[in-house]
Amino acid sequence: MESKVSQPVIEGLVHGIEPPSEEWRQRARQRLDTLTKPLGSLGRLEDIAAQVAAIRGQLGDSISKAAYVFAADHGITEEGVSAYPREVTRQMVLNFLAEGAAINVLARRHHVALHVVDVGVDASFDSISGLLHHKVRRGTRNMLREPAMSEEEVEKALNIGYQLGSEAATAGHTIIATGEMGIGNTTAASAVTCALTAATAALATGRGTGVEPQALANKVRVVEAAVAKHCRGAVAVRPMEVLRCIGGLEIAAMAGMVLAGAKHHLVVVLDGFISTAAAALAVGMAPNALGYLVAGHCSEEPGHKLLLDHLQLTPVLSLGMRLGEGTGAVLAMPVIESAIVLYHQMATFSSAGVSEATR
Amino acid sequence: MESKVSQPVIEGLVHGIEPPSEEWRQRARQRLDTLTKPLGSLGRLEDIAAQVAAIRGQLGDSISKAAYVFAADHGITEEGVSAYPREVTRQMVLNFLAEGAAINVLARRHHVALHVVDVGVDASFDSISGLLHHKVRRGTRNMLREPAMSEEEVEKALNIGYQLGSEAATAGHTIIATGEMGIGNTTAASAVTCALTAATAALATGRGTGVEPQALANKVRVVEAAVAKHCRGAVAVRPMEVLRCIGGLEIAAMAGMVLAGAKHHLVVVLDGFISTAAAALAVGMAPNALGYLVAGHCSEEPGHKLLLDHLQLTPVLSLGMRLGEGTGAVLAMPVIESAIVLYHQMATFSSAGVSEATR
Repeated sequence: MESKVSQPVIEGLVHGIEPPSEEWRQRARQRLDTLTKPLGSLGRLEDIAAQVAAIRGQLGDSISKAAYVFAADHGITEEGVSAYPREVTRQMVLNFLAEGAAINVLARRHHVALHVVDVGVDASFDSISGLLHHKVRRGTRNMLREPAMSEEEVEKALNIGYQLGSEAATAGHTIIATGEMGIGNTTAASAVTCALTAATAALATGRGTGVEPQALANKVRVVEAAVAKHCRGAVAVRPMEVLRCIGGLEIAAMAGMVLAGAKHHLVVVLDGFISTAAAALAVGMAPNALGYLVAGHCSEEPGHKLLLDHLQLTPVLSLGMRLGEGTGAVLAMPVIESAIVLYHQMATFSSAGVSEATR
Repeated sequence: MESKVSQPVIEGLVHGIEPPSEEWRQRARQRLDTLTKPLGSLGRLEDIAAQVAAIRGQLGDSISKAAYVFAADHGITEEGVSAYPREVTRQMVLNFLAEGAAINVLARRHHVALHVVDVGVDASFDSISGLLHHKVRRGTRNMLREPAMSEEEVEKALNIGYQLGSEAATAGHTIIATGEMGIGNTTAASAVTCALTAATAALATGRGTGVEPQALANKVRVVEAAVAKHCRGAVAVRPMEVLRCIGGLEIAAMAGMVLAGAKHHLVVVLDGFISTAAAALAVGMAPNALGYLVAGHCSEEPGHKLLLDHLQLTPVLSLGMRLGEGTGAVLAMPVIESAIVLYHQMATFSSAGVSEATR
C-alpha cells in the first residue's frame, strides 16, 4: 500500500500532541493515598482519577461532557453485510434529531451535550436544524472494488472531526465521547482491525447489528477480500492509508476528533468497536494520543476486544452492549465523573481525624 | 447448631414476600424488542430493565434512590484481624456525618438520599444529629468464644433494617442500596460465606481493608475456628443461626432491609462482600427475595465472588473496588437508572419510522 495522503495534512493533525503529565499522575496518586479509605480500595476509580489529573493538570476538577455522533454510509453495504437496510442510517439520524434514540435518552439523563454530525450519509438533509452539516460525500465507495475514499475525502473527514474536537475544547468541554451511526460500519471496523492487529477476518468479524450465520460467513469473506486487496497482508501499513482504503467517513472524523482531544488535553471516552477502530488509527498516527483515551466499555463485537488489547486499554464497563451511537461511552461517564469528584471532594485522614492503618 | 431464634420473628420478616412478576418481565421483553436498536443490543441493560419491570410493575418508571450505611463493631477485632484499629468505625461514622467519606461524595453526585445508621458501634454518639440512632449493643461478642449475638440482639438488629426498609418504601424510594461500615466485618462475612457455601476459610477470606500476609494467615485461622465452633462443618445450617453466631449487627440489619425491600417491591442494590453476605442470609430465610436483588459490583474480596455465584447474581460493575460503605451499589445506580429510562423513553421502530432488520 503506497501512501496517497499528503504528508503536510498528517503533520498538522498530529502536531503538538504531548503525552499526559506523569508528574500530575504521581501527584494524584499521592493525594489518593491520603483520602479516608483503605489504600487502593477505590480500585479502577483511582487509576481513572490519576489519568484525568495527568491529562488535565490544574483543571482536573472541571467536568463538562459532550458526545459526538458521526453518521455516514458505506459502499460495502452493496455486498449484503448488514442485517438492516442502508436507509436506516438516514432514519436513525432523524431519530437522533427527534430525541428518540438510545443515545438521546442517555445523554439527557447524564447531562451530556449531544451533537449529531452528518459526515457522509447517503441522503439529503437539506438544512434541517439540529444537525451539524459536514457531508463529505454520500457514503464511501465499495472497498471491494476501489479505495473507500479519495485522498481529499479522507482529509476532509479527518479535519471535520479535528475541528469539532477543537471547538469542544474552546466551548469548555473537558470530557468528550466519540460515537457513530452507519449501516455497514462494523465491516469497515473489522477490516481496519485486521490491518492494524494482523488478526484474521474470522476473528475480527462479528454479527454487527445481528446478521445470521450465513450472512456472517459472507461478511467474513468480504472483510478478508477488502484487506487482501488494499493491505496486501502487510501489518505495518500506514494508518492513514488503512483509513482511506478500508475505513469510513465517520471513522476518519472520529480519528480526527481523538487527535484534537489529545492536542487540547481533553479526556476522550471511546465507545465500542467502530469508535475504538478510529482511535486505534489515530494512535497509529500519533502514539502520544493514547494517554488521553478511556475505553468506555467492551462491546460484544469480537474485534473490539482485539483492538482494546492492541491499545492495552481496559474498558470501564462490560455490559454486553453492541449498539454504538456513543451509548457505551456516555454510560461510562458517570463512573469517570465519580472518580473525579471522589478525588477532589473526599476528606483526608488528617482532615477527618481518622486513624490510619497499623502496619 | 440448634436454633435459638424464635420462629414467630422469622415468620413476620419473611411474610408476604412474593417473587417479582414474570408477566411484567415478559411484557418488558416484548417492549424492548420494539425499541429503535438492534434486538438485544443493550445487553445487560435489557435484563435490568426487565427485572425492574418485574419488580415494580406499573410503577416501573419512578426512580427515587436511597442508600443506608449500617455501622457496627465486631468483637472479633480482639483477634487482630484488621489493618485498622477498631475506633475507625466511630471515626468513619463521624466522617459520614461530616460528608467527607467516599459514600457521601458518590451519593451527592448521583442524587441518592443517604442515611447513616448506628446499629452497634462501640462508642457513644449521644444525640448527635444526622445519625439514625438504633444501637443494639456496643459491638458484637467475640465469636471465637461465644455467639456474636444473643437471640434478642439479632432480632432487634433484623427489625431495625426491616423497619427502615419499610419506611423507605413509604417515603417513595424505589431503589435502595445496603452499605456498611464496621472494622472487622470482612471476617464475619468470610465466616458467613463458609457457612452458606461450604467454601474453605482460605478461599473465603481476603485482605479486607488491607492486612499483610501474616495477618491474613491469622484471619483465615480465626474464620476457620469460628465456623468450626458454631457451625460444626454443616452446610445446611439455618441462616438465622449463622447470622446470630458468626454474623454482625450491621449484617443483620442489612438482611432485614433486604427482606423489607422484597416485601415492598423495591429494587435492592447490593454493595460488596458484607452487603452480599447479608443478602445471602436473607435469601436463605426467604428465597423469593432473590428476584429483588441487583449486585452493584464485584469487589476484590475473594469471598464476594463465591457469594455472587451462590446467589447466581451477575454484578453490574467490576472495578476492583473494596471499600464498602455502599460505594459500589451507589456507583451502579446510574447504570440501573439508565436501563429504566431507556426502556421508558426510547422511540419504537414504528413511532420513529425506522426500518426493521431484514431476516
